Amino acid sequence: MTTAEAGTVYLVGSGPGDPGLLTVKARDLLESADVVLHDRLPGPEILDLIPDGNAEDVGKRAHSDKRTSQAEINERLVAYATDGKSVVRLKGGDPFVFGRGGEEAEYLADHGVPFEVVPGVTSPVAAPGVAGIPVTHRDHASSVTFVTGHEDPTKPESSVDWAALAAAGGTIVVLMGVTRLPDYTAALRDSGMDPETPVALVERGTRPNQRVATGTLDTIVAARDEVGIEPPAVTVIGGVAGVREELEAFLR
Amino acid sequence: MTTAEAGTVYLVGSGPGDPGLLTVKARDLLESADVVLHDRLPGPEILDLIPDGNAEDVGKRAHSDKRTSQAEINERLVAYATDGKSVVRLKGGDPFVFGRGGEEAEYLADHGVPFEVVPGVTSPVAAPGVAGIPVTHRDHASSVTFVTGHEDPTKPESSVDWAALAAAGGTIVVLMGVTRLPDYTAALRDSGMDPETPVALVERGTRPNQRVATGTLDTIVAARDEVGIEPPAVTVIGGVAGVREELEAFLR
Ligand SMILES: C[S@@+](CC[C@H](N)C(=O)[O-])C[C@H]1O[C@@H](n2cnc3c(N)ncnc32)[C@H](O)[C@@H]1O
Ligand SMILES: C[S@@+](CC[C@H](N)C(=O)[O-])C[C@H]1O[C@@H](n2cnc3c(N)ncnc32)[C@H](O)[C@@H]1O
Repeated sequence: MTTAEAGTVYLVGSGPGDPGLLTVKARDLLESADVVLHDRLPGPEILDLIPDGNAEDVGKRAHSDKRTSQAEINERLVAYATDGKSVVRLKGGDPFVFGRGGEEAEYLADHGVPFEVVPGVTSPVAAPGVAGIPVTHRDHASSVTFVTGHEDPTKPESSVDWAALAAAGGTIVVLMGVTRLPDYTAALRDSGMDPETPVALVERGTRPNQRVATGTLDTIVAARDEVGIEPPAVTVIGGVAGVREELEAFLR
Repeated sequence: MTTAEAGTVYLVGSGPGDPGLLTVKARDLLESADVVLHDRLPGPEILDLIPDGNAEDVGKRAHSDKRTSQAEINERLVAYATDGKSVVRLKGGDPFVFGRGGEEAEYLADHGVPFEVVPGVTSPVAAPGVAGIPVTHRDHASSVTFVTGHEDPTKPESSVDWAALAAAGGTIVVLMGVTRLPDYTAALRDSGMDPETPVALVERGTRPNQRVATGTLDTIVAARDEVGIEPPAVTVIGGVAGVREELEAFLR
């Protein structure tokens, strides 16, 4: 049993959405912290575990549709902790996988606030997994890369080298990559990746309204549109995406 | 509350070792399944949650030091489920991250056995995370790759393309890579990666006896030997490994 301590910030991962995939420690901290700063990604069942009055939604600013800025979140974390409160900063999945948890941790350290990292089940592993897609597999992939899909791959300032990822030959899992799916699948094809490479999209993996679209590098954009896949979703690219077909009938 | 169902196999991740990082669902399944097949990676506190008589250690064969073969594990999972038992196959971390969970799932499907995948907190994210190393970070890495380090990178049959990984420019986390650290750090240097690139080793991350060694691509082998790092450990390569230095004093 873990109890949140006064003056400490906990950077906590909530997992991919299924409340059963919350860790025991995360649940204890949500129940015992004085204040929990969260956005919407963790989902309603998990947010319902927070005692009344302790939750603070920083995904949206009060009386407006604007999100609380990262600078404001950082300041609030420091202010609560300095005030002697026990503080949870709750993030979808794991706090250090595209979650800006690193920046928050640096800000806390810069301001002398003690903090603890509580890892969570990360969506690029879990969403494919429950859909019958093992991100690594002896016959298909001896590496897996998680990459952000929100940049325009044709822009010179793009920090993702799709050609190098194609050359590495492992599984690629793209986060935040529903909209730009046509762009990075084209970039991978242009880099010489086989257009028949299996690709799967998993939306809201582990939640009751999970949806999956499957195809190849050539057909996945059409499959996305037919199923109507929307964020949050991950794109799995590589031989492992084809394993789902074998497993699907026996998956519970 | 999840209860293990008769005739079903659950492929369950135990997380990186801290019992607090077990998911709520995994804990419920360990407590309710008729039989739990496990190896040693989950650690003693987690294995202690299994009711007496229900645990079966497949990491070692009885009266011998040999491990149960994968073929034998597969057969036993099918036999128990066909016999109407509820079966948990417990794996360290996540079952689909270098855990051979994909092969077990295929075998179950081939034999008509229904199964469920229960993702876990995976060590290549969690072990660096609790040591103050965010695997992705706005300033350092827009991708992260998990790769196996047990192959000899100089052999032509090596399935890992270290040069392509170096070119991709993201964080690299090597699993099963304590022994061959000199080989793949050399391969990365030969591929043009800056020898000053920060590198960290995290042994038994999240456990009470966690140990960390830090250095650069050039110095990490000496640091490994000085600290005496042993498996299980992950190697983190990239700018993010340097973030630990900023955070360490405030990490709880
Ligand atoms: C800002 S990133 C945060 C990732 C999170 N820290 C993690 O470890 O899962 C948000 C992206 O995660 C992915 N994601 C989060 N939850 C998901 C889920 N349940 N199913 C599929 N993708 C999900 C989507 O790609 C989404 O755009
Ligand atoms: C066969 S792989 C299984 C990985 C596991 N399925 C996972 O998701 O973490 C075993 C390797 O995982 C890594 N590992 C597992 N637990 C660890 C821990 N607590 N700290 C550091 N590395 C760990 C080590 O690299 C070890 O050699």
